[in-house]
Amino acid sequence: MIKVHHLNNSRSQRILWLLEELGVPYEIVKYQRMSPVPFAPPELKAVHPLGKSPVLTDNGRTIAESGAEVEYLIDTYGKGRFKPKAGTDDYWRYIEWIHYAEGSAMLPLLMALYTGMLGDAAAALKPRVDSEIANNLSYMEAGIKGRHFFVGNDLTGADIQLLFVCEAAGARLEPYPELVKYRARMHERPAYKRGIEKGGAYQLMGR
Amino acid sequence: MIKVHHLNNSRSQRILWLLEELGVPYEIVKYQRMSPVPFAPPELKAVHPLGKSPVLTDNGRTIAESGAEVEYLIDTYGKGRFKPKAGTDDYWRYIEWIHYAEGSAMLPLLMALYTGMLGDAAAALKPRVDSEIANNLSYMEAGIKGRHFFVGNDLTGADIQLLFVCEAAGARLEPYPELVKYRARMHERPAYKRGIEKGGAYQLMGR
Repeated sequence: MIKVHHLNNSRSQRILWLLEELGVPYEIVKYQRMSPVPFAPPELKAVHPLGKSPVLTDNGRTIAESGAEVEYLIDTYGKGRFKPKAGTDDYWRYIEWIHYAEGSAMLPLLMALYTGMLGDAAAALKPRVDSEIANNLSYMEAGIKGRHFFVGNDLTGADIQLLFVCEAAGARLEPYPELVKYRARMHERPAYKRGIEKGGAYQLMGR
Repeated sequence: MIKVHHLNNSRSQRILWLLEELGVPYEIVKYQRMSPVPFAPPELKAVHPLGKSPVLTDNGRTIAESGAEVEYLIDTYGKGRFKPKAGTDDYWRYIEWIHYAEGSAMLPLLMALYTGMLGDAAAALKPRVDSEIANNLSYMEAGIKGRHFFVGNDLTGADIQLLFVCEAAGARLEPYPELVKYRARMHERPAYKRGIEKGGAYQLMGR
């Protein structure tokens, strides 16, 4: 059976949501962030050398990286749903968004999180970090405007990847009304709610 | 014809290398980093709203994100080469490495680059950033040990993605002998050398 190594308030919430959308049985192994600095706990190193979440195991395979797990689960269990037909324009938009979420969009948000720990000492970087966050959220805002989902007319792996960016943005999402509505819409999905129930407390949902 | 928007000393060197390996004709549009801070120039915003490199255009499509471009070019022009057979264990390792390069490995290297601009003011973050770089380079060192390529017995898109991480690591790669040898081996490939010739000065090659 699929096993998800789930860290609270982390990208692994994506995988629980996707598994609920797919309707396949799975097992959750839970890990708690440390305190006061909310890094992942060392136990995760036993699952995968990088010590990060999400990691999933299935059929003797261990797969890390949200984007790879999303592609794997959809290709293996999606029965043709949750992704556009291979080789179409929509397919390449889908692949681009999946890479974009972690390859570009998360970087300035993580930079803000880390440099935030430095307080005023990081003031010189703040304008660049803030403008890069705005650059990315404006791009996503334009990408969702007039649409229900980022690609095509149904939920795809692109949404699984990008909703987490909206969640990680927290209050920084407010100037982007289309993204705020999108986040609220995704949070209304029954599968999303089941993922939250099974994963336990999740503090990134915004208003 | 494929057009690559190429920024000096950037991830777009990956795409030139891959196109040379594929042996397909392409055109390069060159951009120069600004100075004194080597950000991408504003002209790149005309090509893609994010203003980053690499971006490629082909057949009416515009594709951003190294990982998506690597998948696109190999699926479209690889004739079955440069990737493992879909659905195999090696295929999922290939997909994982492609995501890993930008989804995990580059983050602490970029964090070091940015916080380096703060000098001593970022001292509180340095131990975490350094340990995360070591975590990732150790993981890659273990991944290449005893192998010529990261997946299977031939060059794949995983190598295209991961060599850039080795290059971006610069002198930080020195404690990892397998990665240093790997970087040197890839730099000896005729297609890699042609990519460098066509792209122009590239300062990330290390020793």
